[in-house]
Amino acid sequence: MVRKTKAAGKSSGKDACAGRRGRAVRKLRAAKVDAMLVTNPVDVGYLTGFTGEDSYLVFGSGWACLLTDSRFAEQAPKECPGVECLVRTSPMLEALAGALKGRRVRKLGFDPRHVTVKLCGDLTEKLGSRKMVEVSDVVSPLRQIKDDAELRIMRRAIRIAETALKGLCSLGAKNWIGRTERDLAAELEYRMCQGGADGVSFPTILAAGAHGSLPHYMPGSTRVKADQAVLIDWGAKVDGYCSDLTRVVFTGTIPAKLREIYEVVRLAQKAGIAAIKPGVSGKAVDAAAREVIVKAGYGDQFGHGLGHGLGREVHEAPGLGKKAMARLKSGVVVTVEPGIYLPGMGGVRIEDDVLVTANSVRRLSSLPRDIDAMRL
Amino acid sequence: MVRKTKAAGKSSGKDACAGRRGRAVRKLRAAKVDAMLVTNPVDVGYLTGFTGEDSYLVFGSGWACLLTDSRFAEQAPKECPGVECLVRTSPMLEALAGALKGRRVRKLGFDPRHVTVKLCGDLTEKLGSRKMVEVSDVVSPLRQIKDDAELRIMRRAIRIAETALKGLCSLGAKNWIGRTERDLAAELEYRMCQGGADGVSFPTILAAGAHGSLPHYMPGSTRVKADQAVLIDWGAKVDGYCSDLTRVVFTGTIPAKLREIYEVVRLAQKAGIAAIKPGVSGKAVDAAAREVIVKAGYGDQFGHGLGHGLGREVHEAPGLGKKAMARLKSGVVVTVEPGIYLPGMGGVRIEDDVLVTANSVRRLSSLPRDIDAMRL
Repeated sequence: MVRKTKAAGKSSGKDACAGRRGRAVRKLRAAKVDAMLVTNPVDVGYLTGFTGEDSYLVFGSGWACLLTDSRFAEQAPKECPGVECLVRTSPMLEALAGALKGRRVRKLGFDPRHVTVKLCGDLTEKLGSRKMVEVSDVVSPLRQIKDDAELRIMRRAIRIAETALKGLCSLGAKNWIGRTERDLAAELEYRMCQGGADGVSFPTILAAGAHGSLPHYMPGSTRVKADQAVLIDWGAKVDGYCSDLTRVVFTGTIPAKLREIYEVVRLAQKAGIAAIKPGVSGKAVDAAAREVIVKAGYGDQFGHGLGHGLGREVHEAPGLGKKAMARLKSGVVVTVEPGIYLPGMGGVRIEDDVLVTANSVRRLSSLPRDIDAMRL
Repeated sequence: MVRKTKAAGKSSGKDACAGRRGRAVRKLRAAKVDAMLVTNPVDVGYLTGFTGEDSYLVFGSGWACLLTDSRFAEQAPKECPGVECLVRTSPMLEALAGALKGRRVRKLGFDPRHVTVKLCGDLTEKLGSRKMVEVSDVVSPLRQIKDDAELRIMRRAIRIAETALKGLCSLGAKNWIGRTERDLAAELEYRMCQGGADGVSFPTILAAGAHGSLPHYMPGSTRVKADQAVLIDWGAKVDGYCSDLTRVVFTGTIPAKLREIYEVVRLAQKAGIAAIKPGVSGKAVDAAAREVIVKAGYGDQFGHGLGHGLGREVHEAPGLGKKAMARLKSGVVVTVEPGIYLPGMGGVRIEDDVLVTANSVRRLSSLPRDIDAMRL
């Protein structure tokens, strides 16, 4: 493979990206730096609309420069209106030094969570008298708050994932029984791509029977049997944004123990979602759901956090978990995914994607959660 | 999604990983450090056999400790014989400090290309009197040289990708014509997964007609037409290893200009492969292929390097390109992928995966390269 990227022209819109950069510039001023270097491709895409790779953004008050190369010479200016696209012919750091020449940048900010020790050393050497300054929490807090255009894309990513599962489920238990986990997962992913996804948000988890008790399971050559639970955790990627859902479906009679824990998990998810509103901490939301599971006697069988932020990355800030102190804000999208895992028997997890609204919460995903609707 | 990884038990074998750590330890001694912290998950997997995530390795002479968490408590010891698997309950850096307690580690090496400024700062603070020392080129040079077990897996990844394309091609031009690029790419990926791939090495490039001139194109809603070239760059991921191939197929009559450049590219690839043997630089191999294209008058239409190393990552060291000074060694696997791109008309790239042998080179991929065999 030479390189890959998305076809040009799918910009997030000049206004959206310019607005994001404007908000970032205000943070840079507060941090007393003149400009910021952005190396994380997800952040570069968020601030410019650029969908290519291997390109850095440097920006300050009233200006932004994308350092890209000849592969993206045609695409970059189309995707990034209002951004100067510099098609570099020299190595990246030389191009960066060139782009800063003549600009009043004495202090250049960078995100220490995305710049490696090697790159930082090279930059310090290359930029001479300019000072490299660590600035955290510039782009990540902005990315948490989704605007209308982002939410439209995320809803589409969710709908594509849901439609794909519905299609696979409509084949019925007779079709599923005897097929391998890997085969069913591959068909689910294929259906998402046919439905318009650019790819998957992450490799699909599809776990039959007892495998459902392993939260990190990857589908293998095990064949689905009759009267079994199949746990599926999947998502579509669309225009750079992710969806992320989990459902358990049943290929016949529902084992009594699974029916019991399913109902606990369903009520825990309901309690978690009900606890979400602006100003509430991720810890409090986690606790609201966890309490239901603990009271039912399964606290030890729910070993992970309740959920995580969702957007350009499948795991992003803010988290919902025992130590998640950050408070939720309006515009944040999070997953809510409690689970109970019984080793040797199986597991249940129910995951939906929800939006924190001005006063409350809205579920973006719409698949049923009632256990009897989950029978193939 | 909570998390994902491969089902346990697919270790690279105790001996292989122990041998790799032994070779790394010799480099650490030369660099005068007592132990090394490995944070890059690809390197952690290479040195231990571990297929999970969010886990660090720290190792020295005669000892190795994987810092993992409860999700991998069952899987890690199975995958990593000879490695102490520490299921941490405290934050990663506290667990690391604990793992080093009682060991004679005054200088702890780390790879500055994989440790961020933030992590390095936190480590320096947490490890107190121990000194953090940058050590480059410990794991990457080892990873370049593939052992027999790795080559077996890579051959399988190549075979799965080839079988998937053959299957798709066997549907014939009538089936392809009228289908979208995205739909054909999705079916190719589905066929790889059905054939045993764990996923794709990278999102498939499938470019119809004039789109073939964009080396970084991603498949869209354009429908394939009759008498058209379709450029396909795809690969399968199997047990952590990648394949990476490119072919151009034709849906009928082959346009004369494309036939002309196809032949130039085919001969360039042949010359490039013929130039490969241990001791030759990536630059010399690139030049051997490039010369054919330049002489034919298409030098400006071949804008990228000739190839790249292939293994756990789809792009890894060593490179084949104008500035690739490193010399090839026996056991290295590289792609050889010259191309000619004619804007508005289309492009041709032919890519195979080859192994540098003790004296020469061996092609690992086996799809035909003759143009008339590429007609659907």
